[in-house]
Amino acid sequence: MDDTHIRLAHGNGGSYMRELIETVFARHLSNPFLNVQSDAAQLPAMDGVVMVTTDGFTVQPLEFPGGTIGSLAVHGTVNDLSVSGATPKYLTINAFIEEGFDIAQLERIVISLADAAREAKIHVVAGDTKVVPRGEGGGLYLATTGIGIRPKHLQLGLDRIQTGDVILVSGTVGDHGIAVMLAREQFGLRGELLSDAANVSSLTQTLMQLTGLRFMRDPTRGGLATIMHEICRATSMEIRLRQITIPVQDQVASVCEILGYDPMFLASEGRVVAVVEASQADEALTKLQALPQGRDAAIIGSVNIGCGQVVLETELGGERILEELEDDPLPRIC
Amino acid sequence: MDDTHIRLAHGNGGSYMRELIETVFARHLSNPFLNVQSDAAQLPAMDGVVMVTTDGFTVQPLEFPGGTIGSLAVHGTVNDLSVSGATPKYLTINAFIEEGFDIAQLERIVISLADAAREAKIHVVAGDTKVVPRGEGGGLYLATTGIGIRPKHLQLGLDRIQTGDVILVSGTVGDHGIAVMLAREQFGLRGELLSDAANVSSLTQTLMQLTGLRFMRDPTRGGLATIMHEICRATSMEIRLRQITIPVQDQVASVCEILGYDPMFLASEGRVVAVVEASQADEALTKLQALPQGRDAAIIGSVNIGCGQVVLETELGGERILEELEDDPLPRIC
Repeated sequence: MDDTHIRLAHGNGGSYMRELIETVFARHLSNPFLNVQSDAAQLPAMDGVVMVTTDGFTVQPLEFPGGTIGSLAVHGTVNDLSVSGATPKYLTINAFIEEGFDIAQLERIVISLADAAREAKIHVVAGDTKVVPRGEGGGLYLATTGIGIRPKHLQLGLDRIQTGDVILVSGTVGDHGIAVMLAREQFGLRGELLSDAANVSSLTQTLMQLTGLRFMRDPTRGGLATIMHEICRATSMEIRLRQITIPVQDQVASVCEILGYDPMFLASEGRVVAVVEASQADEALTKLQALPQGRDAAIIGSVNIGCGQVVLETELGGERILEELEDDPLPRIC
Repeated sequence: MDDTHIRLAHGNGGSYMRELIETVFARHLSNPFLNVQSDAAQLPAMDGVVMVTTDGFTVQPLEFPGGTIGSLAVHGTVNDLSVSGATPKYLTINAFIEEGFDIAQLERIVISLADAAREAKIHVVAGDTKVVPRGEGGGLYLATTGIGIRPKHLQLGLDRIQTGDVILVSGTVGDHGIAVMLAREQFGLRGELLSDAANVSSLTQTLMQLTGLRFMRDPTRGGLATIMHEICRATSMEIRLRQITIPVQDQVASVCEILGYDPMFLASEGRVVAVVEASQADEALTKLQALPQGRDAAIIGSVNIGCGQVVLETELGGERILEELEDDPLPRIC
């Protein structure tokens, strides 16, 4: 009997599953709100507007420079709440584990998930595991749902964006996408690049001090370009970005040049894109740059009267329309 | 370009994914709380104790007599809230879809999910889709998180169970497990059996009128036996069940006899197990039997002073200890 790898019986509701949950999951995730004996977890009273978000994670490899699928799942969910102006409070986790998966690796991933949750002060209140047959699960998939509280007065959203507003990004873009891609070694490239995956709450908290903050989002799947298209679709305005101002790490730029990727479409997992009233753009930049995570923050463009297009002013002084993403440059980066 | 099957680009955050979400998911699931443009959904103020539950679903086949993975996901999550005494309110959904999956089948599953949600009056407030490469996803996995509201005064739980309490089940056990197994046709058996998968809220609501209601749970993975073991572990008491009183459909009993399964370990997805103060056991039974879903309800045993064992009094007058489930009789039934 092999005790070091996941078996189908680890997912059947019986003694193996109970042992796995107790020794791997509950052990590292324990907190006052997690009760593995209940069908549903009871939450304390919440003061403010309750916000909910959900996400699935299928990143390959499961462990990469700068994180694991576990920490990524926490950061991704926490960040969706943070950019909505909410304080992350509670988390649920679903794990789909492939038969034959190494339990030691599962535990490393759960520990990194627990560390990220502790740092974000979010409590895992409920979880479920399913085991799928060998060859059918890609090792491990995670699904998370996050619950947060937003102050009652706060108004943020695509509908708040106005002509003349300024667009900022909190740091370099595409680090996560390229770091994960290099970790796969599928192109024979290697690098020292770390994923930027991180909790962005210090960035969103500082921006929320500005009365002129309109909208925030984290540029994950589909990258910066996809957020720009979402703004254009919702507002029918034009966005102009100055390419030279968009922060990109040298190594990311090099890999993109070699493989023909565009950093505008690559995922970051620890950055914030913010739309701010023009008069407060400099203040927003100063606030971001004052934080370690915002060191490379930049003003990258503006929202203008137009017809729903994203225009990129290139380094050479030309202009090009940034089309919406169709084919995937890098699948499975989150 | 094949437009009838899922491609990796349907999961990349770009235009294909947006179109899939709009035409398949949002179209059928639309409600005032679902905003596909937001990172997080805003919930209205909630009066009562907020309860949260989460579950993953990997059932095979994805469509079976009496349901689909979509309706099953809703029922499973709604039922976990209902047996906790909560009224189901909000739902999040994660879909892991395999490349090559038939979009028409996906839509049928989403429609059956939407119908089940409508019937349960639960609103889908957030969702996410990920596409995994061909061969890596078993077609479709779903993960759901449910949020419900429980009345403040209500006290239910394993810790409320006392010596002398009586155990009831709301209907026949194992129908879901056997119906799904027959749908696979892997043993060359066929049958007319429908899964019992259903929303149990009418059953839990009627039981909640009793002051002597101690605890409710739905016998899913691991079946009736696993709930009995959970009670024994939590209370260190002995449970005695009278086998002859446990309702089992003839067809389920026949298949179990042929294949050597024990209905005590098979999943139901529309039943409730309740522990009630002895003096109210008959009233509980009458209340259950008055409902269409509770027609076959029965008193099946009692909680006694003991040492944490589950004792089954057999039809022939003997006794046997019901062991905890180890190996899976029927994998992937939920």
